[in-house]
Amino acid sequence: MKKYNIGFIGAGNVATHLAGELKECGHEIVQVYSRSEESAKQLADRLQTTFTTSTETITKEADIYIVALKDSAVDQVLSKFGFGDKLLVHCSGSLPMSVLSQFAKNYGVFYPLQTFSKNRKVDFKQIPIFVEACSEGNQHILEEIAHEVSKSVTVLDSEKRKSLHIAAVFACNFANHCYAMAAKYLETKELPFEILRPLIMETAQKVQELHPKEAQTGPAIRFDENIINSHLSELKEMSDLQELYNSISKSIFEHHQEKQ
Amino acid sequence: MKKYNIGFIGAGNVATHLAGELKECGHEIVQVYSRSEESAKQLADRLQTTFTTSTETITKEADIYIVALKDSAVDQVLSKFGFGDKLLVHCSGSLPMSVLSQFAKNYGVFYPLQTFSKNRKVDFKQIPIFVEACSEGNQHILEEIAHEVSKSVTVLDSEKRKSLHIAAVFACNFANHCYAMAAKYLETKELPFEILRPLIMETAQKVQELHPKEAQTGPAIRFDENIINSHLSELKEMSDLQELYNSISKSIFEHHQEKQ
Repeated sequence: MKKYNIGFIGAGNVATHLAGELKECGHEIVQVYSRSEESAKQLADRLQTTFTTSTETITKEADIYIVALKDSAVDQVLSKFGFGDKLLVHCSGSLPMSVLSQFAKNYGVFYPLQTFSKNRKVDFKQIPIFVEACSEGNQHILEEIAHEVSKSVTVLDSEKRKSLHIAAVFACNFANHCYAMAAKYLETKELPFEILRPLIMETAQKVQELHPKEAQTGPAIRFDENIINSHLSELKEMSDLQELYNSISKSIFEHHQEKQ
Repeated sequence: MKKYNIGFIGAGNVATHLAGELKECGHEIVQVYSRSEESAKQLADRLQTTFTTSTETITKEADIYIVALKDSAVDQVLSKFGFGDKLLVHCSGSLPMSVLSQFAKNYGVFYPLQTFSKNRKVDFKQIPIFVEACSEGNQHILEEIAHEVSKSVTVLDSEKRKSLHIAAVFACNFANHCYAMAAKYLETKELPFEILRPLIMETAQKVQELHPKEAQTGPAIRFDENIINSHLSELKEMSDLQELYNSISKSIFEHHQEKQ
């Protein structure tokens, strides 16, 4: 398999995990750019490579530039550099591929569907990767690289990738916030969050086999008004939790009234 | 360990799993009561025991009666039967123990903190069980039984159990509803729910080690307005999802503005 010189633009959670994985597959990470010196240095140290915090000194030595920035920073950072005929790739779920067309002739998307935290190891092989490119040749390069790091690779257009990202926000970010609200509430009651860990695992494990609609349990689906009202009254001092409790319970009940 | 004759009042998800587990530990399930003949018969068949659908023919042969009913049905069903000095136990998170005092002299609570679906096997040993009883003697009986089925047994009063139940509604029922909303949305886009399974597992696995506040990722915590607004606009045809997206995103952002 051909090995590439890769420049990373961005040094956050996605960059950290993806760059580490690509290096392990034998690609050379030639430089890390980040506006934050701390982040740039930290990732460059991990990868034993160099870093820069200035767009003017982004290396010209890369074959592929992988952009893993906050979406709103992409335009501003990329406009400072001429990518010529190098392959420019972003990792965003929601940005269309076309945002890159003004910066490079060869461009594409490499979207790993996972939640990354810097100091937590993940098994990249299990992460579905969605690729898209401006030409068949570039798509082939991205598919090849994706197959090196993951066993699940799919070509997906920008519109469908955005839909997937929205679904992922619900299934991951919002589910995690439900855990966070549980933790916040337990803290006020001096009960440890640890108690909930087996329940959280089983809730996730159930939907590895069942559809979530079949897996649903609890007072809202039974529309057990006694419990729901008693919980709402218990939450009266924490209006943020009370509002979420109310709106999610209603949504559960309505969802289960809809035709299957 | 002493083995008891146990009568089950209720034949839903909790009754099905708990009765099966107690039978495996060598207790005798002497009868299953449920208003629904189908449920009563189904569980009785699994347990190779008898069933009834009439409170008037609830057996007098049990040492312990375990009530696993919808909370709002408890009063009505129990008032039809004289429990004398038998031990009467409910499995509810939110009902205080005291609701049983009018029906029996010996009473208590046996609350397994887990989400049960009838046809899904769970490892009972991993399920935290919370017990409470009207006397030390009864508490001892319930603790002994709980230790037979689980490695995590805690004595907890009614008020704290209710708090735990509220937290569990967030961490399990509401998290599962986030999966369900993701599934619903993907269906409209003709994308398979399966794609999200590795992400859902990792989201749950992360909080087995991290606190959920540390584990949070996604556009809401970064307050990436471009993405949030583009997602909200994408959801305009599905007002239920749009409302949830908006309120949960706000809640995530506010939660991360609060002092740690």
